[in-house]
Amino acid sequence: MIGRGEAMAQLQFGVIGHKGRMGQALEQAIDEARHSMCIGVDAGGNVGPLAGQCDVLVDFSAPDALSQNLGAARVAGIPIVVGTTGLGEEHFVMLAEAARTIPVLQSGNFSAGVTLLAHLVREAAARLGPDWDIEVLEMHHRLKVDAPSGTAKLLGEAAAEARGIELSANMESGRHGQTGARGQGNIGFATLRGGTVAGEHSVIFAGPEERLTLSHSAENRMIFARGAVKAACWLIGKPAGRYTMNNVLGL
Amino acid sequence: MIGRGEAMAQLQFGVIGHKGRMGQALEQAIDEARHSMCIGVDAGGNVGPLAGQCDVLVDFSAPDALSQNLGAARVAGIPIVVGTTGLGEEHFVMLAEAARTIPVLQSGNFSAGVTLLAHLVREAAARLGPDWDIEVLEMHHRLKVDAPSGTAKLLGEAAAEARGIELSANMESGRHGQTGARGQGNIGFATLRGGTVAGEHSVIFAGPEERLTLSHSAENRMIFARGAVKAACWLIGKPAGRYTMNNVLGL
Amino acid sequence: MIGRGEAMAQLQFGVIGHKGRMGQALEQAIDEARHSMCIGVDAGGNVGPLAGQCDVLVDFSAPDALSQNLGAARVAGIPIVVGTTGLGEEHFVMLAEAARTIPVLQSGNFSAGVTLLAHLVREAAARLGPDWDIEVLEMHHRLKVDAPSGTAKLLGEAAAEARGIELSANMESGRHGQTGARGQGNIGFATLRGGTVAGEHSVIFAGPEERLTLSHSAENRMIFARGAVKAACWLIGKPAGRYTMNNVLGL
Amino acid sequence: MIGRGEAMAQLQFGVIGHKGRMGQALEQAIDEARHSMCIGVDAGGNVGPLAGQCDVLVDFSAPDALSQNLGAARVAGIPIVVGTTGLGEEHFVMLAEAARTIPVLQSGNFSAGVTLLAHLVREAAARLGPDWDIEVLEMHHRLKVDAPSGTAKLLGEAAAEARGIELSANMESGRHGQTGARGQGNIGFATLRGGTVAGEHSVIFAGPEERLTLSHSAENRMIFARGAVKAACWLIGKPAGRYTMNNVLGL
Repeated sequence: MIGRGEAMAQLQFGVIGHKGRMGQALEQAIDEARHSMCIGVDAGGNVGPLAGQCDVLVDFSAPDALSQNLGAARVAGIPIVVGTTGLGEEHFVMLAEAARTIPVLQSGNFSAGVTLLAHLVREAAARLGPDWDIEVLEMHHRLKVDAPSGTAKLLGEAAAEARGIELSANMESGRHGQTGARGQGNIGFATLRGGTVAGEHSVIFAGPEERLTLSHSAENRMIFARGAVKAACWLIGKPAGRYTMNNVLGL
Repeated sequence: MIGRGEAMAQLQFGVIGHKGRMGQALEQAIDEARHSMCIGVDAGGNVGPLAGQCDVLVDFSAPDALSQNLGAARVAGIPIVVGTTGLGEEHFVMLAEAARTIPVLQSGNFSAGVTLLAHLVREAAARLGPDWDIEVLEMHHRLKVDAPSGTAKLLGEAAAEARGIELSANMESGRHGQTGARGQGNIGFATLRGGTVAGEHSVIFAGPEERLTLSHSAENRMIFARGAVKAACWLIGKPAGRYTMNNVLGL
Repeated sequence: MIGRGEAMAQLQFGVIGHKGRMGQALEQAIDEARHSMCIGVDAGGNVGPLAGQCDVLVDFSAPDALSQNLGAARVAGIPIVVGTTGLGEEHFVMLAEAARTIPVLQSGNFSAGVTLLAHLVREAAARLGPDWDIEVLEMHHRLKVDAPSGTAKLLGEAAAEARGIELSANMESGRHGQTGARGQGNIGFATLRGGTVAGEHSVIFAGPEERLTLSHSAENRMIFARGAVKAACWLIGKPAGRYTMNNVLGL
Repeated sequence: MIGRGEAMAQLQFGVIGHKGRMGQALEQAIDEARHSMCIGVDAGGNVGPLAGQCDVLVDFSAPDALSQNLGAARVAGIPIVVGTTGLGEEHFVMLAEAARTIPVLQSGNFSAGVTLLAHLVREAAARLGPDWDIEVLEMHHRLKVDAPSGTAKLLGEAAAEARGIELSANMESGRHGQTGARGQGNIGFATLRGGTVAGEHSVIFAGPEERLTLSHSAENRMIFARGAVKAACWLIGKPAGRYTMNNVLGL
């Protein structure tokens, strides 16, 4: 069940990228959980000594550092949570490789709400026939530099998977001008930017004369940090393998 | 899968209460489905002769007529769809009794979207722990005389069931004045009335610094009529028993 | 004051383009208003004889026919309401020319709600400083072929005007990919398509840690037809000149 | 124009009730504004010495302390901002009395967005006739003890005033059970409670087949503190009199 979680033993977290925006939120989240302590290292810093003193590594640094970070976790024999964004095909190969010997959990969004939302989107998309059009709407603060958000894509992927289609071949994003009618079976994306919005996502199923909308709204960035801390606690003691937030939340 | 549905053989529908608001919508929905024909009788009229000429009865009349209508369906040996509202304990006993010999489907809302919404609410309520508060919001036109709507209660029931609680004992509706803090574990209801709104429902899961909202919006009353027609088609040829919209939609 | 309006004398409406989607909605709206009668002509048909029998012309045909339609209204000395979309610079010159001798009212949206919304957007945009980002979101049915909608642009224009900027030079529409941060002072647009949605528009003012959202939702196409009928009734007897829905609604 | 505001001279703020939830937010807001300093006193503490060292008093304490606080401001000859809630008739008399000799600004909500929202609600309510029903919806965190919120009432008052009616005599709040149809001309209220929501308000104008919705959403409590600081800066140097947030924001 998804909640604030129980008390846990005194745990040592090794945070890679602890000076970044997410690193600082992580430090606060670890502090809130009380029974734990934080030891940090800069993105690109020497992770080896850190790994030796920790129960778990949490990596919110950069794709280039992933190889080194996974290596340090394997040497120390401890689990690793990866929240770094912008990973490519080669990084997923590294994650799979590391998961042979240690527990590895990678996710694009650690909030309980978004994880559950993706699960519900999968359910709905599988049940609703082709005359229900699927649209994904997201809003973030004015400084965000890419569109649609990683979380919007994650939700679109969930819908595409449930419909047995490839998202990349059926994505309708950035509508402007003479677009023509909506492509049958496509998944549409629309992006709003402005102010200081932490993150809002809606998946809209628009059918004949009725509509189903599944939405998530984050009040601030801390929920993502708390989710990562929860995932790290959960990961300790698990057998080697690849895990997702679905596993943490029992979905 | 939920969609407009396939072509079906030429079917005869017997609509009880065909002069009411829903009866007229049903007539239109049956007409749209083309391969079917409509024979109607007034609420309280003589259903026997009607039942003899039909493949299925659709009852949107009044609770008092239920006993007679079920009887006519049993004599004719045909299935019956019941959409009459305001049923009491005694009517549910009658439905169970009739379901021994004929297929019986009763529902408070025949739209595909609301049926799926209730399913998703059940999923979400079961996964989210007690620090996620559940609220149900609904809006209907200015003429609606009761609050919250039957569909809002249906959604609240779905949430309560998933949490293993009784809705009646945990319902927080009609907040006004010095209410005190929200009761832990309660399910809240809020009601909006105005204009010509056909029906909108949201179930809000409000957790620590994040929120998940599952909503349905009906553009008009026809979706309920079309859902009932679909249910009636589906019911023909099924074995005796009690059925719900979940069965029709494969949920 | 904006309402369903008072009883009016028996009036003769000449509808140009009466077989189109809007023409048929107009016929129904004129019929609802009871004291009026409808005489129609096809888009491109001979408007002269029609104009001679009417109190007012209502033109929902095509840009190419505008010149002929304005001419017929001038010869008959009766007012004209123009709801044709896709007008260019040359058409606005024609409208101004005709307005010297007859009352002319042209609009991209005849609903009371959208007209008032544009007024409120103007108010808000004028008051809120540059750290409040403006975004326009719209959703329409799956068959709509252009984005953003004419009404979305009308709302963006209202905001731009109030801020003393040119919309065309500050429009941020169709975001996709590496967009970079939001342009300071830009007005953003996002477009959703799906199902049978009649038309929904939101203007979002996203400021530092707070947000103001002004939205309109149409339940069906009839509200646009009724607004055009109301505008036509209002226009009869007015002096020659250019009018807008703001005049009709007293904004 | 409503924005973060310009640089201001080094100002001394005297915060009454500086240990409360709002007091702490105020301290942070004053700190953010840089050119200012904060001197605080407990609710019920001795305000006299504080007033002597300040440019302005900001009172977020308790109704009982109002008389003493206004007195201290008058003796020192400095302006006072009052954000204390739960004021009664007698307190408004005191405020009017003090406003004869010093500038006094009292408000139930200091956010720019809500102040502008109330202004827009007044505009809309004045324009829309009686077949547009007005509903006020609000959501706050699970700990809030009264319903509807003060801000919801403030918005309802704005609508009532614009329609020339008394809110108290036309308020429809806490709908539950057999309510009957909506009262013509009434203003409805609906209340949601849950999670950690800082504050969301919507005013819905539901007309015949269309709807206009004006909404405000606060991401956190800081916006209220920043608004109070802005009001205090604005108030310094003004002539004696009663002021509102409308004056600060030039509405």
